[in-house]
Amino acid sequence: MTVTVLGAGSWGTTFAKVLADSGQDVLLWARRRDLAEAIATDRENAEYLPGVRLPDRLRSTSDPREALDGATTVVLAVPSQSLRHNLTAWRGLLHPDATLVSLAKGIELGTLRRMSEVVADVAGVGQDRIAVVSGPNLAKEIAAEQPTATVIACQDHDRAVALQRMCTNGYFRPYTITDVVGCEIGGACKNVIALSCGMAAGLGFGANTLATLITRGLAETARLGAALGADPMTLSGLAGLGDLVATCSSPLSRNRTFGERLGRGETVAQAQAAQHGQVAEGVKSCSPIRELAARHGVEMPITEVVHRVCHDGFHPGEMAGELIGRKTKPER
Amino acid sequence: MTVTVLGAGSWGTTFAKVLADSGQDVLLWARRRDLAEAIATDRENAEYLPGVRLPDRLRSTSDPREALDGATTVVLAVPSQSLRHNLTAWRGLLHPDATLVSLAKGIELGTLRRMSEVVADVAGVGQDRIAVVSGPNLAKEIAAEQPTATVIACQDHDRAVALQRMCTNGYFRPYTITDVVGCEIGGACKNVIALSCGMAAGLGFGANTLATLITRGLAETARLGAALGADPMTLSGLAGLGDLVATCSSPLSRNRTFGERLGRGETVAQAQAAQHGQVAEGVKSCSPIRELAARHGVEMPITEVVHRVCHDGFHPGEMAGELIGRKTKPER
Repeated sequence: MTVTVLGAGSWGTTFAKVLADSGQDVLLWARRRDLAEAIATDRENAEYLPGVRLPDRLRSTSDPREALDGATTVVLAVPSQSLRHNLTAWRGLLHPDATLVSLAKGIELGTLRRMSEVVADVAGVGQDRIAVVSGPNLAKEIAAEQPTATVIACQDHDRAVALQRMCTNGYFRPYTITDVVGCEIGGACKNVIALSCGMAAGLGFGANTLATLITRGLAETARLGAALGADPMTLSGLAGLGDLVATCSSPLSRNRTFGERLGRGETVAQAQAAQHGQVAEGVKSCSPIRELAARHGVEMPITEVVHRVCHDGFHPGEMAGELIGRKTKPER
Repeated sequence: MTVTVLGAGSWGTTFAKVLADSGQDVLLWARRRDLAEAIATDRENAEYLPGVRLPDRLRSTSDPREALDGATTVVLAVPSQSLRHNLTAWRGLLHPDATLVSLAKGIELGTLRRMSEVVADVAGVGQDRIAVVSGPNLAKEIAAEQPTATVIACQDHDRAVALQRMCTNGYFRPYTITDVVGCEIGGACKNVIALSCGMAAGLGFGANTLATLITRGLAETARLGAALGADPMTLSGLAGLGDLVATCSSPLSRNRTFGERLGRGETVAQAQAAQHGQVAEGVKSCSPIRELAARHGVEMPITEVVHRVCHDGFHPGEMAGELIGRKTKPER
């Protein structure tokens, strides 16, 4: 039995390594043939995961037909905003009983759908066959085999447990939950909160402010989750708190770094130019998250502030007083 | 009406400044007469909060009788293990209707009591008159007027709201809750988790491991809290998560720094010598917390590991495998 990972970016390649190190035969699909061939010959993905030796159980291909032939576990590791497009091309090749595992984090622009909803839409499968992996999972650290925990969410608990067995090893410890919604909302919202933490750091604020933004950011994430049917405790776990803390405290986080630039007074365009033309994920996703919150009547003051800074030209310094000066109230 | 703060260490002095900046007349009691006089003349507590100008509404004294005369709000800002001794000396001086506010964090050695229980014991007052302040509250940052949120917990909600009004200002934002137990358990356990985060950093691990320890550390804290009657959501708030993240991410944290030394291979004695002879709070409090957990049948694997390192001579490196290699399971 072979497990297929579709997408050879840094997280896809890392997760393929985790599966192989847990004893699975893994087939990693890369869009570009030269990358697939380089992985096969060099045992390294020099472009997205340089310096990491890939295990022998991991093979690679650029042919989606070969990648999906007979695969009963299919891991989707393409960017969130291109998942629909990619999966549309692949859906005819999927095994009829395959478990589809989403690694993508985000809310689809326009439709405001979560990634598992996009998968269900496009592949036409029930939610019981879709799993989501999320947690404090900076790819480079896992690839370096540092101890990490994660969460596998699936409405079908047996399927989650089967996946858990497939990717447990000496450095990777997955826990199972059934709350897919909570898991996905945590992953989508954390980039926006990380932007706000970066802004605070750029303004010169320290650990109290950072911790306050993380805590209240998680509280507003949990409110949105609850409105969509999530269990608030999921957001207190690895896919909420864990992912958020890893993102907000790592110097590797693009969102954190981008926010710091804004806090120091750069415009979005200046920050983008300084980060090789890339805009941070949170800059994009604060808009659909804000729309989703408005649709469900959920108050998300930190997301609102991030949106105003990123899209209405406000300076983060003007916004700090706005957050601290809100009407006093009970914590929940 | 004057508010009295008993204890002129860095947190007591800072909280006195917060109260004064919120419009209260504050009387700050210092044990040593020279310190009380220096604060009065220099408008600065050069010993514990150097460089911070104290507001004019803040007066100081070293006479407990003067400090407590007519005080209807009494803030207790002495170290946790000396609270019983101090309060025993003061109890005859307390106003019969005074609200007693505890800033101390910890579990009393020997009795395994929380600080509010010690206050109730010694002062002979009902729990409805005792409040607790906790949150992501590094004193130096608040003294620098950086935006910070906190929690005021009191079983009597009206009393919590009255306190909230007394200490709300442009940089300090208190929220109210009624869950005193959750608030105190969060404050006591965070030092132990911060030690474990320091150990991981000392071993060379990055943000994933840190975030995993914070998340699972908070989960075991919440389990202990629940066994003692706390609301698990309190631990997801400012007094749990917020305090923990601030402590674990700040370079100002003694527990974090102490743990790093242990992770790099120093013994407890060596780390203590390197930190001016002071042992970190978590080294002491892991023992009563572990006892409390055992008494209530609560599993606290991270606390257990910290205890073995600090008191049984194990090296943190031997313990990492132990945590990651536990039987796989659901997240909760």
